[in-house]
Amino acid sequence: MYGRNHTAQVVRFGQEFLLLDCGEGTQLQLRKYKVKYSKISHIFISHLHGDHYLGLIGLLSSYHLSKRIEPLQLFGPRGLDEILTTHFRWSNTSLSYPLHFTETSTSGKVLLLEHPLFRVSSFPLKHRIPTTGFLIEEKVGPRSLIKEKLQENPLPFPAMQSLREGKDYLDSDGNTFQVIDYCHPHPPLRSYAFCSDTAFIPEVSAYLDGVDLLYHESTFMEVDQLRAAEAYHSTAKQAGQIAKLSGSKKLLLGHFSTRYPDLSAMLTEAQSIFPNSCLSEEGITYPILPTHE
Amino acid sequence: MYGRNHTAQVVRFGQEFLLLDCGEGTQLQLRKYKVKYSKISHIFISHLHGDHYLGLIGLLSSYHLSKRIEPLQLFGPRGLDEILTTHFRWSNTSLSYPLHFTETSTSGKVLLLEHPLFRVSSFPLKHRIPTTGFLIEEKVGPRSLIKEKLQENPLPFPAMQSLREGKDYLDSDGNTFQVIDYCHPHPPLRSYAFCSDTAFIPEVSAYLDGVDLLYHESTFMEVDQLRAAEAYHSTAKQAGQIAKLSGSKKLLLGHFSTRYPDLSAMLTEAQSIFPNSCLSEEGITYPILPTHE
Repeated sequence: MYGRNHTAQVVRFGQEFLLLDCGEGTQLQLRKYKVKYSKISHIFISHLHGDHYLGLIGLLSSYHLSKRIEPLQLFGPRGLDEILTTHFRWSNTSLSYPLHFTETSTSGKVLLLEHPLFRVSSFPLKHRIPTTGFLIEEKVGPRSLIKEKLQENPLPFPAMQSLREGKDYLDSDGNTFQVIDYCHPHPPLRSYAFCSDTAFIPEVSAYLDGVDLLYHESTFMEVDQLRAAEAYHSTAKQAGQIAKLSGSKKLLLGHFSTRYPDLSAMLTEAQSIFPNSCLSEEGITYPILPTHE
Repeated sequence: MYGRNHTAQVVRFGQEFLLLDCGEGTQLQLRKYKVKYSKISHIFISHLHGDHYLGLIGLLSSYHLSKRIEPLQLFGPRGLDEILTTHFRWSNTSLSYPLHFTETSTSGKVLLLEHPLFRVSSFPLKHRIPTTGFLIEEKVGPRSLIKEKLQENPLPFPAMQSLREGKDYLDSDGNTFQVIDYCHPHPPLRSYAFCSDTAFIPEVSAYLDGVDLLYHESTFMEVDQLRAAEAYHSTAKQAGQIAKLSGSKKLLLGHFSTRYPDLSAMLTEAQSIFPNSCLSEEGITYPILPTHE
């Protein structure tokens, strides 16, 4: 969810909804685009500049007003908990649901969340105040069984369970059921990296090794590179360089300065370095496809 | 600026722009409706529920990013200063302009601002947390001279100054120049009252004596009056009653619950008590006209 509104992205993974950053107006945008935001279970905040987190207090308040009971995990920089508790203290709000806060750190890659299907880590970016990016990596999940095979030859439950876990099964009569015969091949694992506000730092590519989709901020164009460096932001060309250096498969540009009403030159600039680049647009879904190599 | 966005109103008085409440997304709405929001000099916050002030931090940050230097006066409940300083401390922001904060009080009518053209007072409302309404009253300003008269008979500067101040002028030759001959009649003084979130309290009408325009919240309809009372909100009928009791000239309804997609019945309900009622709509300007009696 981008464009000229403030930063916020929903990453959907099966039935899990993750929110990356939550700029002012995010809850209004979530309603506008009919995202089932009650399903968001984890929120990740990159840094404490207003355009990346000022929608959080309103979103958390709305969950409270709608009597949410499901727990919510929040990850963000030191200070975010103090900001939230200050707001809730003055509005006399005692949240209807458990809110668990985990402070992020800018010391290297840090594992934040281990889910059966994916893991989320943070890694340091370089901005005026402590800022992290986030990396979401798919884990090997259960395999899916080939329905036609099961109809031909029904299997006992323990066999199905073993095969779904990727293990061949040997029954008490000595018959072997092989994963390769009963399961669809596992799709390649997917990954997504989110690099919000950051100066150009080639070192960040070490954390992004071959991601399927890289979101990298591109506040300025190369003609304004001095301004970008002063403001701890990146240019479209620099975003392309990070995508190239890291072996990313696709690059999504965003966080565009309002000085560029037309973004086509921004895109061309990134594509001159990294052809598979695109502009992020408000309300658009970008599927993260497994890369077949 | 209303409708289904959060509460925020700009009151323009000549070249002065006042902002009443500042819900999440206010700066985006100000841009959308092309309000010259850099001119806002005074901001008044009724209470610390998110839908009435969460846009303030972003707006103040935007003023900073655009290098505002003009001072800004902020009026709001105890706690608002702590909330703001907490945000600015963590975002490492030292504002580019002076921000003067005045704490409001819920003890009766309190004069907040004495401007040459108008004054602003707060008065207590009844809500879950300390909440005030705001009353803007026009003061007698300078009179405007009748151009045709001056063309016929040019006057010396001291005479014009005296007449504009509403005083007849006697020159050194003993000639008298009368205000009634040289000045347009003074238009009646105008007033506006803003009653954001509040339970129905007939006593509030004492503060609203004959205002030209009364904004009163109307979150619910009478059929939901118990729910309104529980939530310290009002119904359309109750808003009409306050307008009637206070001798207001016109009533503007707002802060509608999302449970009512169609608001025409809401309007009819208020009009059954107070005929000169209307619904506030997002992006619409409501002129406050002097009442000729």
